[in-house]
Amino acid sequence: MERVLSGMRPTGKLHIGHYFGALKNWVKLQDEYECFYFVADWHALTTSYENPENIVEYRRDLVLDWLSVGIDPEKSTLFVQSKNLYHAELFVLLSMITPVSWLERCPSYKEIKQELKDRDLNNIGFLSYPLLQTVDIILYSAKYVPVGVDQLPHIEISREIVRRFHFLYKCEIFVEPEGLLTEVPKLLGTDGRKMSKSYGNTIMLSEDLKSVEKKILTMMTDTNRKRRTDPGNPDICPVFDYHKVFSTDEERAEIIDGCKNAKIGCIDCKRVLLKHLFSFLEPIQEKRRYYENLIKDVDEFLAPGQKKAEETAGAIMEKVRKVMRV
Amino acid sequence: MERVLSGMRPTGKLHIGHYFGALKNWVKLQDEYECFYFVADWHALTTSYENPENIVEYRRDLVLDWLSVGIDPEKSTLFVQSKNLYHAELFVLLSMITPVSWLERCPSYKEIKQELKDRDLNNIGFLSYPLLQTVDIILYSAKYVPVGVDQLPHIEISREIVRRFHFLYKCEIFVEPEGLLTEVPKLLGTDGRKMSKSYGNTIMLSEDLKSVEKKILTMMTDTNRKRRTDPGNPDICPVFDYHKVFSTDEERAEIIDGCKNAKIGCIDCKRVLLKHLFSFLEPIQEKRRYYENLIKDVDEFLAPGQKKAEETAGAIMEKVRKVMRV
Ligand code: SF4
Ligand code: SF4
Repeated sequence: MERVLSGMRPTGKLHIGHYFGALKNWVKLQDEYECFYFVADWHALTTSYENPENIVEYRRDLVLDWLSVGIDPEKSTLFVQSKNLYHAELFVLLSMITPVSWLERCPSYKEIKQELKDRDLNNIGFLSYPLLQTVDIILYSAKYVPVGVDQLPHIEISREIVRRFHFLYKCEIFVEPEGLLTEVPKLLGTDGRKMSKSYGNTIMLSEDLKSVEKKILTMMTDTNRKRRTDPGNPDICPVFDYHKVFSTDEERAEIIDGCKNAKIGCIDCKRVLLKHLFSFLEPIQEKRRYYENLIKDVDEFLAPGQKKAEETAGAIMEKVRKVMRV
Repeated sequence: MERVLSGMRPTGKLHIGHYFGALKNWVKLQDEYECFYFVADWHALTTSYENPENIVEYRRDLVLDWLSVGIDPEKSTLFVQSKNLYHAELFVLLSMITPVSWLERCPSYKEIKQELKDRDLNNIGFLSYPLLQTVDIILYSAKYVPVGVDQLPHIEISREIVRRFHFLYKCEIFVEPEGLLTEVPKLLGTDGRKMSKSYGNTIMLSEDLKSVEKKILTMMTDTNRKRRTDPGNPDICPVFDYHKVFSTDEERAEIIDGCKNAKIGCIDCKRVLLKHLFSFLEPIQEKRRYYENLIKDVDEFLAPGQKKAEETAGAIMEKVRKVMRV
């Protein structure tokens, strides 16, 4: 079975944007591929090195979120990046053959630097981030990496590094990875901005349902629809984006008609959404409670996955050391 | 006892320049400090990544050379860099806080790039070389690092990285290393150029004495002294540099007089040197033969040092992970 690899940074509890943007796909991929999913704690340090307070704590939260949505440790190999030192070893070795310019011209390098202007990101670790990502992928001979369009250049760098390695050392050790394009539905935050923990506008997978209700009922709508009697435009309403994800075709048709012709109020519209949101979140949260009780020590829980990851990577590293003669 | 750390790249058999420039000092330091000496095989890759054919083989040669001159595995901790993955782990972690600009402005970065113009050294590994060196040092809490003047900027970078780490994570985990300035006598190659394996002008510690004799007898002298009857000038003669290292004050006085006044020939002068060279090399080579027979597998021989290095570094890494929260 071909292998898929993906990772997430432990930066706090996941929200529904993470689910529809990645996790939903992860769950599905489990039945089609041999999946390796990992906690990318070193990656979290590339941008949060100045404030790493919670990386260890978030590791547990992240794994619980995964399990709650249906990531199955029996099907998938779950592990923590920092606990497999082969990632570091291959990082050092590949750094020897990776041109600085390849990393500098990576589009996300400039982008993230621009986005996080308040942080000092002029470090080697941040510059080398696509190299660390390459290591994560090729250490497990992953054929596919689920990505959004914006991450395709990263996969291209990984492929280039693999080709350069094979060329220099006259071998065929690694698998050239390919991006598995994932469609990401638009889900804005409750204030109409990008959904992000730092804006406090997210709906977390583990969020208390009372709190979800409050957030949705006060959520931004089509700002032109000031009164119940004003017609609205679902096309520009963030609530309607949620309906696209959660509601049935029938419900959506009714809402479009009701909104455009001022037959329904926004609260009515949101109640339909809330019904769906609740029945989406309830089983997830129940599962989360189950695993919260089950898992005392997350590292212990991950031990089998960690072992498999280490063995898989170890076999590749033996070959790498051989051709690099160290 | 305070700790000293130093490493050498496994790039072939060592020559007398290595001895007087470093090893002689290493031997002496063993009685004054707790010494950690390591085979810097990853460092060899920073510049030789395209041609790593012999790194593994040279590892054995390097250790044999060390032992032959009196490095004592009972006194010093000997180990191989690439076999202690904590070097890689700390490298990844420190890369997160190390500004690219600190590495770019390291003088040796530009220098070596200039010197090895024929090689493509635009890689992350080569740029990060002073960071890898920092890791090597601080992983063992080494207080002193024997260096030549030209390497002092590297030590300064190490100190800056340590200070930045302590500042960011409000801790005092590492020892700020200091350079232990080593005086390096001038010993040119037998052709009068810099002694270097690539010029084939070296006198190796393990070199057959017949070959040593031949090399010295044909060695370049003061080029103005064309005939036996021409007076010479020891100040500009590479052979006399060797006398400065090997001969007695009395002998040197005689040579100066004999050379300047054409009382002795260059062959006479070289015979005096050869006598010293032989009695210098003979016991070294005898010891080398002893260890060559003794050591079947160099990694096995180094196992106790490797274990101690790993434990020492492991204790530091536990603290590092704690403050970086991974
Ligand atoms: S009715 Fe629904 S779709 Fe229309 S503006 Fe209100 S919340 Fe948005
Ligand atoms: S006599 Fe000795 S010092 Fe003088 S030129 Fe000859 S080799 Fe050099």
